[in-house]
Amino acid sequence: MGGGKLSSGRASQGSIPLVEEFTQSVSYDRVLYRQDIAGSKAHARMLAGRGIISGEEAGRLIRGLDAVLGEIESGVFAWNTADEDLHMNIERRLTELVGDVGKKLHTGRSRNDQVSLDFRLYVSDRAGVWRDLLRALVSVLIDRAEEHADLLMPGFTHLQPAQPVSLAQHLLAYACMFLRDTERLSEADRRIRVCPLGAAALAGSPFPLDPHSVAADLNMHGVFRNSMDAVSDRDFVLEALFCASLVMMHLSRLSEDLILWVSPAFGFIRLPDAYSTGSSIMPQKRNPDTAELMRGKCGRVYGALFSLLTVMKGLPMTYNRDLQEDKEQFLDADRTLSLSLRVAAGMMAEVGFVPEKMRAALRRGFVNATDLADYLTAGGVPFRDAYRMAGKAVDEAEKRGCGLEDLPLDFLRSISPLIADDVRDALSYERAAARRESPGGTGPLSVQRQIADLRRELATG
Amino acid sequence: MGGGKLSSGRASQGSIPLVEEFTQSVSYDRVLYRQDIAGSKAHARMLAGRGIISGEEAGRLIRGLDAVLGEIESGVFAWNTADEDLHMNIERRLTELVGDVGKKLHTGRSRNDQVSLDFRLYVSDRAGVWRDLLRALVSVLIDRAEEHADLLMPGFTHLQPAQPVSLAQHLLAYACMFLRDTERLSEADRRIRVCPLGAAALAGSPFPLDPHSVAADLNMHGVFRNSMDAVSDRDFVLEALFCASLVMMHLSRLSEDLILWVSPAFGFIRLPDAYSTGSSIMPQKRNPDTAELMRGKCGRVYGALFSLLTVMKGLPMTYNRDLQEDKEQFLDADRTLSLSLRVAAGMMAEVGFVPEKMRAALRRGFVNATDLADYLTAGGVPFRDAYRMAGKAVDEAEKRGCGLEDLPLDFLRSISPLIADDVRDALSYERAAARRESPGGTGPLSVQRQIADLRRELATG
Amino acid sequence: MGGGKLSSGRASQGSIPLVEEFTQSVSYDRVLYRQDIAGSKAHARMLAGRGIISGEEAGRLIRGLDAVLGEIESGVFAWNTADEDLHMNIERRLTELVGDVGKKLHTGRSRNDQVSLDFRLYVSDRAGVWRDLLRALVSVLIDRAEEHADLLMPGFTHLQPAQPVSLAQHLLAYACMFLRDTERLSEADRRIRVCPLGAAALAGSPFPLDPHSVAADLNMHGVFRNSMDAVSDRDFVLEALFCASLVMMHLSRLSEDLILWVSPAFGFIRLPDAYSTGSSIMPQKRNPDTAELMRGKCGRVYGALFSLLTVMKGLPMTYNRDLQEDKEQFLDADRTLSLSLRVAAGMMAEVGFVPEKMRAALRRGFVNATDLADYLTAGGVPFRDAYRMAGKAVDEAEKRGCGLEDLPLDFLRSISPLIADDVRDALSYERAAARRESPGGTGPLSVQRQIADLRRELATG
Amino acid sequence: MGGGKLSSGRASQGSIPLVEEFTQSVSYDRVLYRQDIAGSKAHARMLAGRGIISGEEAGRLIRGLDAVLGEIESGVFAWNTADEDLHMNIERRLTELVGDVGKKLHTGRSRNDQVSLDFRLYVSDRAGVWRDLLRALVSVLIDRAEEHADLLMPGFTHLQPAQPVSLAQHLLAYACMFLRDTERLSEADRRIRVCPLGAAALAGSPFPLDPHSVAADLNMHGVFRNSMDAVSDRDFVLEALFCASLVMMHLSRLSEDLILWVSPAFGFIRLPDAYSTGSSIMPQKRNPDTAELMRGKCGRVYGALFSLLTVMKGLPMTYNRDLQEDKEQFLDADRTLSLSLRVAAGMMAEVGFVPEKMRAALRRGFVNATDLADYLTAGGVPFRDAYRMAGKAVDEAEKRGCGLEDLPLDFLRSISPLIADDVRDALSYERAAARRESPGGTGPLSVQRQIADLRRELATG
Repeated sequence: MGGGKLSSGRASQGSIPLVEEFTQSVSYDRVLYRQDIAGSKAHARMLAGRGIISGEEAGRLIRGLDAVLGEIESGVFAWNTADEDLHMNIERRLTELVGDVGKKLHTGRSRNDQVSLDFRLYVSDRAGVWRDLLRALVSVLIDRAEEHADLLMPGFTHLQPAQPVSLAQHLLAYACMFLRDTERLSEADRRIRVCPLGAAALAGSPFPLDPHSVAADLNMHGVFRNSMDAVSDRDFVLEALFCASLVMMHLSRLSEDLILWVSPAFGFIRLPDAYSTGSSIMPQKRNPDTAELMRGKCGRVYGALFSLLTVMKGLPMTYNRDLQEDKEQFLDADRTLSLSLRVAAGMMAEVGFVPEKMRAALRRGFVNATDLADYLTAGGVPFRDAYRMAGKAVDEAEKRGCGLEDLPLDFLRSISPLIADDVRDALSYERAAARRESPGGTGPLSVQRQIADLRRELATG
Repeated sequence: MGGGKLSSGRASQGSIPLVEEFTQSVSYDRVLYRQDIAGSKAHARMLAGRGIISGEEAGRLIRGLDAVLGEIESGVFAWNTADEDLHMNIERRLTELVGDVGKKLHTGRSRNDQVSLDFRLYVSDRAGVWRDLLRALVSVLIDRAEEHADLLMPGFTHLQPAQPVSLAQHLLAYACMFLRDTERLSEADRRIRVCPLGAAALAGSPFPLDPHSVAADLNMHGVFRNSMDAVSDRDFVLEALFCASLVMMHLSRLSEDLILWVSPAFGFIRLPDAYSTGSSIMPQKRNPDTAELMRGKCGRVYGALFSLLTVMKGLPMTYNRDLQEDKEQFLDADRTLSLSLRVAAGMMAEVGFVPEKMRAALRRGFVNATDLADYLTAGGVPFRDAYRMAGKAVDEAEKRGCGLEDLPLDFLRSISPLIADDVRDALSYERAAARRESPGGTGPLSVQRQIADLRRELATG
Repeated sequence: MGGGKLSSGRASQGSIPLVEEFTQSVSYDRVLYRQDIAGSKAHARMLAGRGIISGEEAGRLIRGLDAVLGEIESGVFAWNTADEDLHMNIERRLTELVGDVGKKLHTGRSRNDQVSLDFRLYVSDRAGVWRDLLRALVSVLIDRAEEHADLLMPGFTHLQPAQPVSLAQHLLAYACMFLRDTERLSEADRRIRVCPLGAAALAGSPFPLDPHSVAADLNMHGVFRNSMDAVSDRDFVLEALFCASLVMMHLSRLSEDLILWVSPAFGFIRLPDAYSTGSSIMPQKRNPDTAELMRGKCGRVYGALFSLLTVMKGLPMTYNRDLQEDKEQFLDADRTLSLSLRVAAGMMAEVGFVPEKMRAALRRGFVNATDLADYLTAGGVPFRDAYRMAGKAVDEAEKRGCGLEDLPLDFLRSISPLIADDVRDALSYERAAARRESPGGTGPLSVQRQIADLRRELATG
Repeated sequence: MGGGKLSSGRASQGSIPLVEEFTQSVSYDRVLYRQDIAGSKAHARMLAGRGIISGEEAGRLIRGLDAVLGEIESGVFAWNTADEDLHMNIERRLTELVGDVGKKLHTGRSRNDQVSLDFRLYVSDRAGVWRDLLRALVSVLIDRAEEHADLLMPGFTHLQPAQPVSLAQHLLAYACMFLRDTERLSEADRRIRVCPLGAAALAGSPFPLDPHSVAADLNMHGVFRNSMDAVSDRDFVLEALFCASLVMMHLSRLSEDLILWVSPAFGFIRLPDAYSTGSSIMPQKRNPDTAELMRGKCGRVYGALFSLLTVMKGLPMTYNRDLQEDKEQFLDADRTLSLSLRVAAGMMAEVGFVPEKMRAALRRGFVNATDLADYLTAGGVPFRDAYRMAGKAVDEAEKRGCGLEDLPLDFLRSISPLIADDVRDALSYERAAARRESPGGTGPLSVQRQIADLRRELATG
């Protein structure tokens, strides 16, 4: 069965500290105590509802479980690592408190379905926290976008300045990623929050159990279909870890952008002191340590996902003790993700933007070169020729260390006599960005629509 | 931009074969031709619908695209690796066929959103094929389960015989896994089949595009929200690869069970000749090569997922050429998964079951030991004592090399005088399995309910 | 710089608990205290040797460091998480103890090379422990092999019985794997134990440092070649994690064999009680939980390797804070590996073997079928025909539920009249195994040679 | 056995195209033909040397194998996918050419040891090619370093300019990484190039084989120790894939630096046209597609490593068909790595450096701030105060958009009256770099020593 080091019916059982240390889980699975007790209370209520135990017995069990909960939450509970796992610890104490009726709690269930239930509830609860943290981050991003709806910067492809975009558009791109993460988590949660109680050891139970009432009691989305699948399935943890991996990947991309932006080469942002670190010997430095760590921690959550994928590969039916390895991976990923999301929200709320550096990058990147070509095309020049002429202007501006818009009209007219005074207008970054009002584009109206839509989704999601 | 090796406006561009080989994608991305052409036709229709090009121009473009499609499907299309990718090849040919109007097709779009659209359509199409293959496999598993609803075998935990279950229950556990895989894919498909066209290079377009009409035309579920997210997002491939990884993991578990079962130590099944391999020198062997390969190929699909997760880690906004690495990973995973599912369905349809070996394993595994303890408990023995008595019986039966049910009554009565003739009944595997009629359990009624429910889901899903 | 939260020269620095929790490392890097202090003492001696500080100053620093060491080892050291990492904690205390001379310790070094030195020493020390644990396991395997040099069992390919081998040969196969692991670790250690001190922040130092004397002092294999490489390199951790991954993979294979062997279907071994677990409700069970967990923990160490590979991907030169993520991964892998090796050695020392079950598997697997074919071939039958005749005998024996050697001579002669009484001899498993005396084969002389060779390597390795 | 779809002795064997497609390997393993034939020739010579076959027979076999080799290399060999793998194809043809003696080639060997031998030789050969390619890349890096020994640029930590370094020092950091890769490969090769021939199916052979002479004939480093380990071991492929993963990781870091440097924000380099790509609509762009793809392909090789690690996890002894999955992963990694190394060498040979942009970055990054603090410290100011004063100067220079060295002396003296005219000297980037002459540092003498040392190693390595 799932865990307990129980004395076998066939022979006395030795035990050595090394093996206990290797196999115990109570040092980490105790964080599931609330889920374990909630599950046990629901089970007791169901047993009574089905007449398997009396209402009075259920009442004593539930009061006993509440007493155990109180002891744990007040810190007086005596955890015992010899009792190997959370469940044994709670059982032992329950029986001390309520006597032999404590053993009736196991009627019709086994460690295998119990441990799955507890962990499903726990993973689901944490996934709910992740969604809340994601929404808080999205909210910050939208606020900052709204605040800077008019601030222009180069949009990059291949880390080359490509076209002018608003800072808002850039921030909203991340808002969209994180909102997509919440959708994915919501869907996964429907599979996570499926009740396995009643699968028992692996084959179901002779008792007339009612898994649906347990599921309803625990506010779960559904009930297992097959007992053997129920006790051997860990898809739900894998889904949660995959969702977490994508969130961390998105955070690693945001971190990369921040690390670039705070580098003097870009200089687009100033990180608040709490989120950067100076050097003990180099007074000029502002190291984005927080963002770097966040980027690095992406690997950590990927590692947790691949750990558990490896564990599951090639396991025969049904429960195997290997499955115990699911918990520490999840707990570490959860801690990493939750902390990262909170740090990211804090950092994004306080990051300062440096408009003049963004403006300088627009010029340095000649992101209006396409607009020059378009201007010429509008004047009748075939695009291929216009493209080449714009290239010449770029070469000249690069030589002079100025923007295209700073080139003398004379020079531009030497490239093509079609160029007139109104080229200044055509080369305006503001106009270039403002023109892109197609749905989802960087134009100001489009950005306002995005903000409104995202706000609405946040409110209703 | 996404891909094309285009002559820059600033300088003539050299090219060397080594680099072409390194950067080209046409050797593999040509499989997306149908999606590319469908997307282009939808784009042309939208452009005309918006008055950006004339209806007559759209017509010529669409006829040209259909002609290109015809050439490709009839095998006369001249693929040119110097044209680097699928899109350039089709563009070139289209322009040859329809003249300068061919270039108008690019109005309001870019390689970046085009390549994303094509690949989203392709991934979604393949995910649809996967769902069909999964459903076919589930259907086989249900059929075989129904056929063997009464056949008993040991259910295993820790690879130790635990309790008697029906072969049907075991097969249905896998049916449930694969059905869960289809649900996950269906949900992922809602995010895969989102239309990115109109994001253009990264910032949207000055043209009054109508992405919603393109999406409707292509039967997609929705439209991108933010242009920068649209061109840099590969979550959709990652979700597909994750779904594929879980399917392969489930197949690896099924394979493991088959490999165990065909081993003479178990002997539960006979693999059809087409799915096993003899040895050139050992005439007694029936190697389950097909199942072993399927188990091994799980690693391959995990590898594809991890590859792309690695690629995405820490990429700055927006499009980066690294993203090109998404395709070969997906194509290999798709080939592996599709072939594996077809092989699995064929193998499961033809595998032969060996009831007498299953029966022998029930006895060898003493899976009725709990029933003996229950019998004693029913007679008033405390469970702990009953458990120890049953353990003694197991020791004796092991010594004698027989099942518990084969022990002489005299011996059993020497353990407890409470044991009477009716213990034979209590030790019946059939009765033990039949008692477990709780929802999802291995009892025959429960199994029939599962079969009916799964059939209904398959029909409507 | 590597780590410290130092007040910048440019602005006062805020700090918030959330970020401190996110960025601190002292909660885990404190285990490196011994390496840190040893490195600092070597640095102080070198500085004095070069005349950069006086001998008297070096003496005070070294005495102060020894005092800090004493405080840590006696448990009175006051760790302070506000001091973020191990190094800051030790620095602070050192300066309290020795005054301003404490600051001279940093002459010519930086956090970046210091943290690399400490971790290189730590990883190397642990790799040494791993080698010792591996050799202890190999030693157990050799002892058990010698003890059971004559015990025959089926050798498996494809989990099908193939040819008779000695248990010794099987155990020595694992001994060879683990010995190979020690070689790999020894070679990796030559790259791990390279001294980076003197690289300073990233560019080397204006002081006339002598890295070679530091390396010699610390018993290291060599000295960094390039300062920028030195501070940004984490190959050494990756090599250690890869070596650990292969060890765990080998342990997972051994575990799989044990799990199979203890299953009643095989029954080849009995696990000592301390290494198996009973079921609270199924008295017949002997679950190999320890072996299952060991198999599962393979995924955990793989995860650590891939975490760090992900972290390193695409990092620009030189030090980036992402590198801090190397430590927790390594510490977890180290704990997992060390514990697993100790448990494996204990389990293998105590596992009991069941000769009669191995013998039964030889018969059930018809592993002498090739010998029957060879017998016929020796009598002049073409191999293809002989192979088919042997196949017929297998079919019959399977039907009768006996071994080939148990078939009546009459029946065998009905297959081929060439078969005579001496076929019994030909079908002897002992003779079949004994014939395979080619180097590395399962023959008894070969096994003795292997044992002697491995013992010699253990003694000298 | 390893591979062949052989008709079993027990029953006629069906075959269906789907399964053949699933299990065949000849579509990819045919690239091993040279190794297969070399191994067979060595085996034939050994058999004759041992008197197991006659010298005349060996001669016919060897001539036949040479004829097969000729057919394959001239392209006339008729590969047949029905013959499933490389080995069956060659066997069939050999027997056609030399008659029944062809079958004697299999005396004392099996598919299991044969396939391992072939692949070990192949992996080793490719590892040799990798080493050559790595050395070619190192050579280019040294040449470019020597060419630019005096060119200064900012050295970065945390992507923040930290201290001035020479471009040479930066390039040599990569040279050191790639040279370390060659060492690792050389050591791994000693374990790769171990001869498994003679392990036969799994248990060794009754024939008096001489594996050492085969190994010597094939120029291998040693001989397997245990037959069961020999046929089930794939450590050698994993080691090669790990080495490849580290090379790709190093290339991904180099690529990241190149991508940053070619971005207009840095502008440190110009990529030759062959290695960059323009945009079809944005004439100003120079996309570093080649470097981006190289960075991305790191994930691909990681994926191959993880695939095979997954495959190996938990496999029981000895050969299992899962092992067939080793080849495609290796072949893809080999192709990726070889191409990447060649592209990297070509790109690094031709990349152009832009001194004035590096100089601008030195100023913009205030990398001489530490030198200002040192100047003040030398004048008697406590370092903490000097550090704060230098921070003030940085703030002012940032405001003015100039370097520290451009600040008026008046302003500097307002910070500290200790500052005199000689501060210009102290702020010189050249002097700052030149001072760091500690071993491995960026000083010009140190760089020359590094170049000389690396050249010597390349020459002798």
